[in-house]
Amino acid sequence: MSNIFGNILKLSIFGESHSEAIGVVLDGLPSGLRLDFDEIQKEMARRAPGRDRFSTPRKEADIPRIVSGFFEGRTTGTPLCALIENTNTRSKDYSRGPLRPSHADFTAEMRYHGFQDYRGGGHFSGRITAPLVFAGAVLKPYLQAQGIEIFAHIKSIGTKSEAAFNSAHPDLAAYRKLKEQPLAVLEESSLQTFSDEMDAARKAQDSIGGVIECMVYGVPAGLGSPFFDSVESRLSAMLFSVPAVKGVEFGAGFSIATMRGSEANDPFYFEGDAIHTKTNNTGGINGGITNGMPVCFSVAIRPTPSIAQAQSTVNLITGKEETLAIHGRHDPCIVPRAVSVIEAVAAFVTADLMLEAKTYAE
Amino acid sequence: MSNIFGNILKLSIFGESHSEAIGVVLDGLPSGLRLDFDEIQKEMARRAPGRDRFSTPRKEADIPRIVSGFFEGRTTGTPLCALIENTNTRSKDYSRGPLRPSHADFTAEMRYHGFQDYRGGGHFSGRITAPLVFAGAVLKPYLQAQGIEIFAHIKSIGTKSEAAFNSAHPDLAAYRKLKEQPLAVLEESSLQTFSDEMDAARKAQDSIGGVIECMVYGVPAGLGSPFFDSVESRLSAMLFSVPAVKGVEFGAGFSIATMRGSEANDPFYFEGDAIHTKTNNTGGINGGITNGMPVCFSVAIRPTPSIAQAQSTVNLITGKEETLAIHGRHDPCIVPRAVSVIEAVAAFVTADLMLEAKTYAE
Amino acid sequence: MSNIFGNILKLSIFGESHSEAIGVVLDGLPSGLRLDFDEIQKEMARRAPGRDRFSTPRKEADIPRIVSGFFEGRTTGTPLCALIENTNTRSKDYSRGPLRPSHADFTAEMRYHGFQDYRGGGHFSGRITAPLVFAGAVLKPYLQAQGIEIFAHIKSIGTKSEAAFNSAHPDLAAYRKLKEQPLAVLEESSLQTFSDEMDAARKAQDSIGGVIECMVYGVPAGLGSPFFDSVESRLSAMLFSVPAVKGVEFGAGFSIATMRGSEANDPFYFEGDAIHTKTNNTGGINGGITNGMPVCFSVAIRPTPSIAQAQSTVNLITGKEETLAIHGRHDPCIVPRAVSVIEAVAAFVTADLMLEAKTYAE
Amino acid sequence: MSNIFGNILKLSIFGESHSEAIGVVLDGLPSGLRLDFDEIQKEMARRAPGRDRFSTPRKEADIPRIVSGFFEGRTTGTPLCALIENTNTRSKDYSRGPLRPSHADFTAEMRYHGFQDYRGGGHFSGRITAPLVFAGAVLKPYLQAQGIEIFAHIKSIGTKSEAAFNSAHPDLAAYRKLKEQPLAVLEESSLQTFSDEMDAARKAQDSIGGVIECMVYGVPAGLGSPFFDSVESRLSAMLFSVPAVKGVEFGAGFSIATMRGSEANDPFYFEGDAIHTKTNNTGGINGGITNGMPVCFSVAIRPTPSIAQAQSTVNLITGKEETLAIHGRHDPCIVPRAVSVIEAVAAFVTADLMLEAKTYAE
Repeated sequence: MSNIFGNILKLSIFGESHSEAIGVVLDGLPSGLRLDFDEIQKEMARRAPGRDRFSTPRKEADIPRIVSGFFEGRTTGTPLCALIENTNTRSKDYSRGPLRPSHADFTAEMRYHGFQDYRGGGHFSGRITAPLVFAGAVLKPYLQAQGIEIFAHIKSIGTKSEAAFNSAHPDLAAYRKLKEQPLAVLEESSLQTFSDEMDAARKAQDSIGGVIECMVYGVPAGLGSPFFDSVESRLSAMLFSVPAVKGVEFGAGFSIATMRGSEANDPFYFEGDAIHTKTNNTGGINGGITNGMPVCFSVAIRPTPSIAQAQSTVNLITGKEETLAIHGRHDPCIVPRAVSVIEAVAAFVTADLMLEAKTYAE
Repeated sequence: MSNIFGNILKLSIFGESHSEAIGVVLDGLPSGLRLDFDEIQKEMARRAPGRDRFSTPRKEADIPRIVSGFFEGRTTGTPLCALIENTNTRSKDYSRGPLRPSHADFTAEMRYHGFQDYRGGGHFSGRITAPLVFAGAVLKPYLQAQGIEIFAHIKSIGTKSEAAFNSAHPDLAAYRKLKEQPLAVLEESSLQTFSDEMDAARKAQDSIGGVIECMVYGVPAGLGSPFFDSVESRLSAMLFSVPAVKGVEFGAGFSIATMRGSEANDPFYFEGDAIHTKTNNTGGINGGITNGMPVCFSVAIRPTPSIAQAQSTVNLITGKEETLAIHGRHDPCIVPRAVSVIEAVAAFVTADLMLEAKTYAE
Repeated sequence: MSNIFGNILKLSIFGESHSEAIGVVLDGLPSGLRLDFDEIQKEMARRAPGRDRFSTPRKEADIPRIVSGFFEGRTTGTPLCALIENTNTRSKDYSRGPLRPSHADFTAEMRYHGFQDYRGGGHFSGRITAPLVFAGAVLKPYLQAQGIEIFAHIKSIGTKSEAAFNSAHPDLAAYRKLKEQPLAVLEESSLQTFSDEMDAARKAQDSIGGVIECMVYGVPAGLGSPFFDSVESRLSAMLFSVPAVKGVEFGAGFSIATMRGSEANDPFYFEGDAIHTKTNNTGGINGGITNGMPVCFSVAIRPTPSIAQAQSTVNLITGKEETLAIHGRHDPCIVPRAVSVIEAVAAFVTADLMLEAKTYAE
Repeated sequence: MSNIFGNILKLSIFGESHSEAIGVVLDGLPSGLRLDFDEIQKEMARRAPGRDRFSTPRKEADIPRIVSGFFEGRTTGTPLCALIENTNTRSKDYSRGPLRPSHADFTAEMRYHGFQDYRGGGHFSGRITAPLVFAGAVLKPYLQAQGIEIFAHIKSIGTKSEAAFNSAHPDLAAYRKLKEQPLAVLEESSLQTFSDEMDAARKAQDSIGGVIECMVYGVPAGLGSPFFDSVESRLSAMLFSVPAVKGVEFGAGFSIATMRGSEANDPFYFEGDAIHTKTNNTGGINGGITNGMPVCFSVAIRPTPSIAQAQSTVNLITGKEETLAIHGRHDPCIVPRAVSVIEAVAAFVTADLMLEAKTYAE
């Protein structure tokens, strides 16, 4: 029902792939935050298409225009609205008849009774995540000033994978370089391996999925709540709102289900005065609340459903079954572009939790 | 921050393991729903301990007492509050000093500044899921009257697993028998295999995890919304609020990330007049909205952190590291008891979506 | 739709006049608050019937039983649930047929499709405000520790009225005595005048209304927000949820509409280092945000619709018009008992604002 | 904290008087609603300045540009965002030093720690109500198609007043003409009387307040809920978010507090098959729920605090007391322009209630 998310911070997104603009309203921001537009633009560029040969050749400026809540270089504390105009839109690529398999064509038709803007995926377009990236770019410096950093890397493309983050003893120096690379990978060899996987999919007129792992480093212990406002609940709710995400796991995730307790448990110890855990199979969260270790999670990204191969489907207008080949500008793999989106989600939820934590104490 | 969940239906839970009572308030229920107390009691019994040899020997009545919102056998439409008194509580088993690894002892201390009720896990106790099961029992007949059924089975215990649901062509007759069995499994042999795994863990003074798969059958196309109110977002938010859940995936889930699009996509076809998909790798959800196929998801349940084996940890009171062996009444595996909790979550979110869907159309 | 209120603090009430119990869940409370049960009981007694000759002769214990969220004399920070059992309930006094004029009999029938618990007003009963008074009693000491006090007096009964609070230069010593008096009045003579008005109404088999004025003293400047979370919006939303409230005004209220700006404006001046206003026609709120002056508002309480005089009405069951005389135990005036309810609302909203204000700053 | 309002429909506003744009996001709109841009423009013009000699001479186009959620002439059901660019803004009129009495200058400083956009009142500007009027214009035809009409008139200016709506037996023909008149008044003589009052205030370099009465006609019985989602709670919360509103009353409002029950009660009778009340002192609402009679309420609008007369105040920058005369473009009375804002609030809340009511029944 709602395109609004958050407890103290509230993020509201709007727009369709081919509407006049897409955008975001950020409500509940502290006043006085400085915005660094170069940094914002860099973050936007990480998600934008056309950055590398794996992304669609559409050139989109994706320059957010802030229309409210910003004055003399700082947030005012009132709702900050940013718009991204939709400029390079070729409506002719899109028709309404055939239901693209695993796209939202059919569900949109049922949900909106045929009134949805179907051009380019409409409100279901991955493009609507650009406002999320903007929000993340606004919030990352706020977090960083409190010692919190957010890292993400591509853990796998198809069946090829690389090492996970070391979430018990993170290698911060290495992780800080992730953003600068053509692909956000921890192992140099992954650059080639993952590229090859994506190239192979493209050549086969196909697409391919992957897994992104994310770490929130420096988060204090005591954030979140048991049950419905658990850190996992809040992160997962927002992560699953990102198109193409089909799985979310924290810490050891699904593999913890194969373990015994003696293996899965993370023993506490003192590191100086601080309480740490020797392993971090719970992903930094116990009982829904952060324990001071890095919050770690992975998301499964499905292969984009737009493929040039012929697929069988039905046509809502003709009422017949037919064969469909989807042409146009489509990434063979959206995982590289999704990295900054996942980071943005982590930034938003963490900032919301940090603000909320001020209300816990008497 | 909040122990309240839902959009139209709102569920609020309260209570600690050793407080006077635990309970639930259900707000937004349609008026006129009949409650079947035998059915409610059966559902409560599925989660209650002492049902089989894998659960803790504590005998708890777990009989909910409805104190409001119920009149002459039906819901009134005003908030329905149900209480479960805490009777058989032996406070002596619990002390505050040592931090049980991967329990919420430490995070509760940080979150609540030392004022939490630490007895028996307090508000973090798995016992607090009993009110969820009650809510599920209230809502399942409401869903069933609309043709919606909810099934769940144990897909794996430790490294042993059984077949998944066939979510493209479900075998309803088989699934309807799941509730009647000592363990909710699809393959007869799993009864032995899974029991052996749990026995082995117990004998080793250890615990073990597992995966539960759940299917919501009969859900109409068009429920949910893109982004923050996606069906995945809402289900996952509530699923991750269940203690011990560390992963949630929809349809093919994490394995879809290894696929190519041509394999992952679910082709549409006509089954009579209805639009179906040949496969169901998306778990019945496209763009956050149901497509009319069964909604299917799996959750990873960690091994319970309470084990009798010696573990190293720190003691908050002495400020020293120490070795801890957790004695008392603890399941070696909570997966069997969690089945009805997962079903309850599915029932709640589905009922909330069904009510909400009435507001979509003009 | 919802019986839940609040932003950081969330208050959820449930119960019907003749259900097994009524109660409240307070979520978002800071951990570590001490509860003073003598004080709570005193507050409950202020609202309870049978305190003086103007209230109904029903004796209700109204002793809240806390079943969760409370441990070793303090709040735990998890949801605090308190129950008040319904004991002295004589169901025979109530029948469903005739619609009592200006009661909720008809609207409940339409809203809940005939499934409402109609005994004694059901969920519409003034008795459901007892949980609000409990919440107020929990929060008042929390506010007091921060220098915030809440006062309320009966400004008028029928056409008789007394002086208003001096909200620019409050006489705290006098206001602190209000609670100790048989009627919360500022002028000694009002005790007789107001009593006479209520007696006269009772003798005429009639009822009578009045106005309560409330002041929140000591509230810091800067609480609240423009627009939908204005202090006025939040207070009024909760005030209008109290049965019988038909008007809410802040500061000079409706009379400010008759003024010129030069008269209505509150000029600023320095009182030492602090910024005060010479008058307080805005009731301590500018642009939805507190200005540091006392927050002042008045609420209009209608005469209770239950009167023994014959009234014409319709009977839903017979489908005919008929004459109705309402017998049984009814106050001729609920204003005296409503005083503590209004104070409780002020306490809840103020505490919620104080907690929220911690999130405003970077 | 929040600039978002509503249960099923969610309205989010943003913008400052002198930011690049102001705007609104409407979420939860049914899909398929047609928008009539001529009608929208007419409604916008009713609130816009420069319409008559009582409003400020600023010419603002106030033409909303819809950037999302709208396709082929109809709402899509996804968030509809509309922007109004700020064009004619003369920043020089505004300085930050002296605190304008009864304006939000001081409270904004405290709330936003000096980072607020202070130009022209910033986010506190009455101009931010233009998006509300847009929302009202979108929703009025939706309501009208369901037989619901919204009327409002100026009940008083200063000490001069005219007759109230007849809410038991409304004169629809007369009320439908209100919009077409230069001032929305029921009595022809009020045109002169009210104009004289406003002229006199202007000549005295002063301002003046007034009261607006609003009626929602045709609303079915059974909308709303007891307690926190009472119709009064929801309407008042949004009404008090409109700058300058200092009082809200329903039906007889504050005067009902002077009545006896026998006078205040609204007797039921049959009008054909329908149940009506002979009087409508409760304003069409019993127990928080509509009874099918017109919903009637009044709001007190304070005199605008911007007056040219000298006022004493303090200067935040110099830290000294000083005398201030506010020059520039200011209405002597904002009541005429507020009429369409109040109507818009009524339209929004009623539409939200109508959608929500679909979820009440099984």
